[in-house]
Amino acid sequence: MTFAHRLGAAITALVFLSSLAVAQSDPLPSWNDGASKQAIVEFVEAVTTEGGADYVAPGDRIATFDNDGTLWVEHPMYTQLAFALDRVKAMAPDHPEWKTTQPFKAVLDNDLETLGEAGEKGLMEIVGATHAGMSAAEFEKIVSEWIATAKHPTFDKPYTDLVYQPMLELLAYLRANGFKTFIVSGGGIEFMRPWTEEIYGIPPEQVVGSSIQTDYKVIDGVPTLQRSARIAFIDDKEGKPVGILTHIGKRPLAAFGNSDGDYQMIEYSTAGDGKRLGMFVHHDDADREYAYDRDTHFGKLDKGLDDASKEGWHIISMKKDWKQVFPNE
Amino acid sequence: MTFAHRLGAAITALVFLSSLAVAQSDPLPSWNDGASKQAIVEFVEAVTTEGGADYVAPGDRIATFDNDGTLWVEHPMYTQLAFALDRVKAMAPDHPEWKTTQPFKAVLDNDLETLGEAGEKGLMEIVGATHAGMSAAEFEKIVSEWIATAKHPTFDKPYTDLVYQPMLELLAYLRANGFKTFIVSGGGIEFMRPWTEEIYGIPPEQVVGSSIQTDYKVIDGVPTLQRSARIAFIDDKEGKPVGILTHIGKRPLAAFGNSDGDYQMIEYSTAGDGKRLGMFVHHDDADREYAYDRDTHFGKLDKGLDDASKEGWHIISMKKDWKQVFPNE
Repeated sequence: MTFAHRLGAAITALVFLSSLAVAQSDPLPSWNDGASKQAIVEFVEAVTTEGGADYVAPGDRIATFDNDGTLWVEHPMYTQLAFALDRVKAMAPDHPEWKTTQPFKAVLDNDLETLGEAGEKGLMEIVGATHAGMSAAEFEKIVSEWIATAKHPTFDKPYTDLVYQPMLELLAYLRANGFKTFIVSGGGIEFMRPWTEEIYGIPPEQVVGSSIQTDYKVIDGVPTLQRSARIAFIDDKEGKPVGILTHIGKRPLAAFGNSDGDYQMIEYSTAGDGKRLGMFVHHDDADREYAYDRDTHFGKLDKGLDDASKEGWHIISMKKDWKQVFPNE
Repeated sequence: MTFAHRLGAAITALVFLSSLAVAQSDPLPSWNDGASKQAIVEFVEAVTTEGGADYVAPGDRIATFDNDGTLWVEHPMYTQLAFALDRVKAMAPDHPEWKTTQPFKAVLDNDLETLGEAGEKGLMEIVGATHAGMSAAEFEKIVSEWIATAKHPTFDKPYTDLVYQPMLELLAYLRANGFKTFIVSGGGIEFMRPWTEEIYGIPPEQVVGSSIQTDYKVIDGVPTLQRSARIAFIDDKEGKPVGILTHIGKRPLAAFGNSDGDYQMIEYSTAGDGKRLGMFVHHDDADREYAYDRDTHFGKLDKGLDDASKEGWHIISMKKDWKQVFPNE
């Protein structure tokens, strides 16, 4: 045996041993054995097995994830709404008129009922006051500082701790199998980007979301992207496949959501040729997180529940399918 | 010496030899030695040298490239315009009224003067007739078939052969140094995506461009992204930094263009902290390609030429800096 042969044999052995180790360790340890986990593993094996009928080249392995309620907690309200309300309070000293002007008075009084009555128009006023009128760089700084310190009202933990461990494992498992993972969320794209890479391993260029109009101007000699209060794109419902086309330009092989806002994304993704995977996370775990579906202001899942079975989509039961909900439990 | 030691020594030697090979081969063989090539290499070494003052982590190494006139030929007219005119001719049998209706009559008569007089309004009518009213998937098929067969009127070669060899080398050199490369073009995003991966190694999700409004609808049971004639976004001039924010969410370290339409992209990119690189390709080579700058309908470079020196941007002379213009010469 020459040295080169020995080297070759040693490398072959190393590669074999490490592939064996990968095959033997469970990539989804927080998932209980059951139909959901089985569907995920079967799908990944089908599209990654070279020569198989459902094989897909790595460059076309695209998976999209909703964020609120799919990757992290969305109750008692969307995290971005909590951010907006906190911003109103932080900015109030510079806006004495808010003490007597709705919907700001309701925010300052913690009067969620009156705030709810202000409806979408009221919400847009709050978004305009808290999300616009600064540069993209300034907004990024504001979000970064808030997310580093804010805590969830019930769990009393940073929001970024309230991400779902089984979904983190799913993201990593897909990426280890050559998938490119994207967030496709109704939330604001610039609200998510400052922290998605650290928390989910998803870089800013793989985040799709709703956006306000940004204008490029040179202000006092400084090239600036200035945020206006005008809505540019709503990445929800029918908007999600459009956002996917705009940002990704390929139909996802797999799509994960938790509400009817994700219906069209899952419908569009699973309508493609070959093996596809569409899944809804069902919040049915009042003990460890929350239980809600057809009747809620945040993350309503109604039509998705009705149609999943006939469409071949999977319902992930948080209660039954997840061994552990959050990291570091 | 144990076997493990021998294996270790062999691997070290292999790694050393291959790094030596990389260091010794010129990554930019089609570039003549000179200020442009030197600026590129110095920039890449500065931002990739760990511990250096200008070091940037791989995830933040973003480079953006205009397409028309920067990566491929844009004269005698933008390739997408040639596509639109060809489409009018191909569709004419189904539109007998075009024989007597402007601007279509001008296209069918090859009367570019009358077509020019129809201005932007006329052009929009042609775009509407040729780029809208079908699904995104159908449009992709139409573009793919056209690009595979159409030929440039002067060079008599497929357009995809008329890409600039030095820029292909630059793309590869940047990627080999941990850069993520993006196209940021005034051209239509869905016109470019079908072929950018094969030609430039840039996948669809890294292509930013102008777009028309697409609507998601279920048509006869088929989830469809349907192209409308309404312009959604113009990725040119002030639009380029906005497109970069929307799609990438990071300020590029390096930006490459060739016309005043790229001015703001280069201005925005080079205004960031640390070492930056902004370059304009100057078409000054009438023998091998074209010579034009301040006075042309396609790819006008005027303000960019005036301001480059004081802004620290580089002008790439096609004539002097490029040893070879096209691949396979």
